[in-house]
Amino acid sequence: MIQRGGVTAPAGYLAGGLWCGVKKEGAGLDLALIVSDRPATVAGVFTQNQVKGAPVTWSQQVVRSGSAKAIVANSGNSNVMTATADDDCRTMAASVGQFYDVPATDVVVASTGVIGKPLPIDAIVKGIVTLAPTVSPRGGSDAARAIMTTDLAPKESSAKISVGSKTVTVGGCAKGSGMIHPNMATMLCFVTTDAAISKAALKDLTKRAADASFNRITVDGDSSTSDMLIVMANGASGAAVIEKPTGKKFAQLLTAVTEVCVDLAKKIVVDGEGATKFVTVRVTGAAKEKEAALVARSIATSNLVKTALFGEDANWGRILMAAGNAGVKFDPAKISLRISGAPVFADGGLVSDDWEQGVAPLLKARDIELALDLGQGDKEADVWTCDLSYDYVKINGDYRT
Amino acid sequence: MIQRGGVTAPAGYLAGGLWCGVKKEGAGLDLALIVSDRPATVAGVFTQNQVKGAPVTWSQQVVRSGSAKAIVANSGNSNVMTATADDDCRTMAASVGQFYDVPATDVVVASTGVIGKPLPIDAIVKGIVTLAPTVSPRGGSDAARAIMTTDLAPKESSAKISVGSKTVTVGGCAKGSGMIHPNMATMLCFVTTDAAISKAALKDLTKRAADASFNRITVDGDSSTSDMLIVMANGASGAAVIEKPTGKKFAQLLTAVTEVCVDLAKKIVVDGEGATKFVTVRVTGAAKEKEAALVARSIATSNLVKTALFGEDANWGRILMAAGNAGVKFDPAKISLRISGAPVFADGGLVSDDWEQGVAPLLKARDIELALDLGQGDKEADVWTCDLSYDYVKINGDYRT
Repeated sequence: MIQRGGVTAPAGYLAGGLWCGVKKEGAGLDLALIVSDRPATVAGVFTQNQVKGAPVTWSQQVVRSGSAKAIVANSGNSNVMTATADDDCRTMAASVGQFYDVPATDVVVASTGVIGKPLPIDAIVKGIVTLAPTVSPRGGSDAARAIMTTDLAPKESSAKISVGSKTVTVGGCAKGSGMIHPNMATMLCFVTTDAAISKAALKDLTKRAADASFNRITVDGDSSTSDMLIVMANGASGAAVIEKPTGKKFAQLLTAVTEVCVDLAKKIVVDGEGATKFVTVRVTGAAKEKEAALVARSIATSNLVKTALFGEDANWGRILMAAGNAGVKFDPAKISLRISGAPVFADGGLVSDDWEQGVAPLLKARDIELALDLGQGDKEADVWTCDLSYDYVKINGDYRT
Repeated sequence: MIQRGGVTAPAGYLAGGLWCGVKKEGAGLDLALIVSDRPATVAGVFTQNQVKGAPVTWSQQVVRSGSAKAIVANSGNSNVMTATADDDCRTMAASVGQFYDVPATDVVVASTGVIGKPLPIDAIVKGIVTLAPTVSPRGGSDAARAIMTTDLAPKESSAKISVGSKTVTVGGCAKGSGMIHPNMATMLCFVTTDAAISKAALKDLTKRAADASFNRITVDGDSSTSDMLIVMANGASGAAVIEKPTGKKFAQLLTAVTEVCVDLAKKIVVDGEGATKFVTVRVTGAAKEKEAALVARSIATSNLVKTALFGEDANWGRILMAAGNAGVKFDPAKISLRISGAPVFADGGLVSDDWEQGVAPLLKARDIELALDLGQGDKEADVWTCDLSYDYVKINGDYRT
């Protein structure tokens, strides 16, 4: 169902991006604008870090109101922990609002990048004045590029569904790379849809889509101060309003938004800082889904597992060790482990003396699956992650300079 | 109070180490034996990983009995998750017990190294037969070397105190390097003392010493399947028996054992895999000590903080971000941060425009202190860690081959 396109794939959205001077010249676009041609319902999920960027606090208020006209986002500077952070954030919202003749409180603001440096707000305001008249239905990919920081590639996704006689489209863009971890603390993601949905139903849908996508990925276990998922729904498809978080139409839209979010989440992992592998950790046979997710996350966040995967080393012992650290009770004699489909461990021991011959070639692939069955129930969870490489250390050892 | 010497510094202990063939030839000693010349009271703290090595389960039983004659330990193979693990572990204990004419259940067993490969038990038994007659009061340092895996240096420590008219000595050795994390899941540490103390009081003392030392260090956030702290007390000093976990004599011994454990714990961090920095994370001004420790641990386990320290980058934003991820509520406007004594952040912002000039030279030192005050109480906690370097990835990307 996933197809090409991003935030301007649904009807009634305009977007664009440009370089305004937050990043160094030549370092790429740094200002994105996404606009709905009519008022849109909005929902969001935000970082749970105690230290929140000014844009997070601001956009939480916008989301509480339930309605938004636009999203403005800059990369290169996260507008966190500076004396002027709140003022600068409000100025960004007001500048956009002024152009579209809406209150500043109808504008979601997001910032990502270095922490603690004052935002060059004059440059951003000039950028908004230049950018606003140029947004277009073909500008989604520029917006996707303008929110990148250490990302190597822009991340876009979209999906189409039929709701009654109408075609509803969902589009999205995201940025990630560092500080990627569950608890929705992870990145910027903007999802647009031309479906019509009530504020309450969209809030529920957004939370559920986030839990099944962004809260299932991890790059380095840290949660940033700035990150958010925003979903806008403007009704431009003409489809009937989904009033409640139940029923077939709600389920269809939830599926489409979740698919777009999962696609973007996986793209974030693939583009994890220094990543050379895309790793799916699948835990099955758990008594509770929550326990499956805890075990999967413990494996996916283990530096020892992630460095072994970088080294293409079938170090199953570390995988079991990491599973054992999840705080979930299980019987090691009942678990079984497959690596990319090849059996490794079962019935309390290695499956054979030459198990590694089957696994070693599979570890050379870019995509690797670690499948652990706990042997105690039928609940399961997937978590997606990447390996931990020299380049992760390089990128993060000297990011600011 | 800390001085030279290790497990044979206290009266009545003999130890030794040799190479018996678990490691490759030339890779160093791999079998250690520590013996008390009389029955000793014993206590221990063990990994909380759900996946436990056979030696952990075995030694937990020994500790429950409260009495032990000897500790036998091998490096190079952790004797975890093999079909013969339990049998091999019992064979090691029985071989030592046979020599000293005590039951196998009086012998603590520890193994550290690769997971899931059968132990070369015949070589170990031959090693025990060779080693047992050679243990001596000068053999502590050989034992310390024989438990090393990726450690670069052996780790020994000892302390002397006066208890009444008697001199009591505490000695210890430890190995660490990878998989170092709180929850006593971390390493091998053997502590000996010639104090006399009841089983119950030694149990309490051991738990408290571990909480103040090994549970305050972290290298990579993973807890191994094999690790343990064992404390033996044989009464050879002639000092009166400490019956209860209260009173001046108990406090004196607790202080001495804790000092030895803290010294060994710090040595483990200094020798963390690939470490180039020794980092003290000191959180003050917390409402509760537990909250101070949680925030300190969140900072100390953050890959983003640790890579920044490797890069000698004063990335205070990541320190605050990591503090905010601890799950502890605090007001960012009230916190203050000093790096190695130099003020960085206070009153909701950077202390000055040129703060970095004061900090940058300090980051070039090997020892770095990150001091965060939460501004909400008078409780504090220290956690010790190291940086995350290229060499960490190198060591762990290709450990088994």
